[in-house]
Amino acid sequence: MNSYTRPNDMTWTAAEKKLARRIFEKAFESECATIVAEVKRMIANAKAPSDIWRVHDYLSEQREAVDRIYDYRYSVLIRVFARLLRDGWLTEADFAGLGQEKIDRIKLVATL
Amino acid sequence: MNSYTRPNDMTWTAAEKKLARRIFEKAFESECATIVAEVKRMIANAKAPSDIWRVHDYLSEQREAVDRIYDYRYSVLIRVFARLLRDGWLTEADFAGLGQEKIDRIKLVATL
Repeated sequence: MNSYTRPNDMTWTAAEKKLARRIFEKAFESECATIVAEVKRMIANAKAPSDIWRVHDYLSEQREAVDRIYDYRYSVLIRVFARLLRDGWLTEADFAGLGQEKIDRIKLVATL
Repeated sequence: MNSYTRPNDMTWTAAEKKLARRIFEKAFESECATIVAEVKRMIANAKAPSDIWRVHDYLSEQREAVDRIYDYRYSVLIRVFARLLRDGWLTEADFAGLGQEKIDRIKLVATL
């Protein structure tokens, strides 16, 4: 036994859960906004109406990726936040209010 | 035996095939243009970026419907054109240049 706390053993206080949900939603909406911008760009640059099916292909791919990443279970949330931090959808400032141990863990996992 | 020609027994001349392809593409692009307009409307009226997934659902449904209808095999083309005529994607004028027997058959099937 040692003092190491595995990410999925971390407990989340009610306040942290509320904040975590907000952080999660913020990243999700940011990522969706980027997808919306790309869809608009694709539609604006379309040569024919049937190019809309390329938009559908693009959305199918993005949805699969987004569904894979955005998993709101506390057992995986540190890893999810680490991924979103690494990919630039969140910054360290977004985590203010979470326990320091969680923030440190998120930053550590983001570097792995 | 009688003189009735079943739609999938009709022969298509080279000129008719060329025209049929143009008619088919015209209806397809018209239908896609309507879908594009609806997508633009949905994006303009979206309350949150994540509403983009409703656009994806809509496109998935439409693609399934469009794929089902737009079947360019000569054995089913009369029925496809009849359907597109009935649904307003084509008008009788679009068929000018096809043999009269085919036009009559398309109009008949459209009423069934």
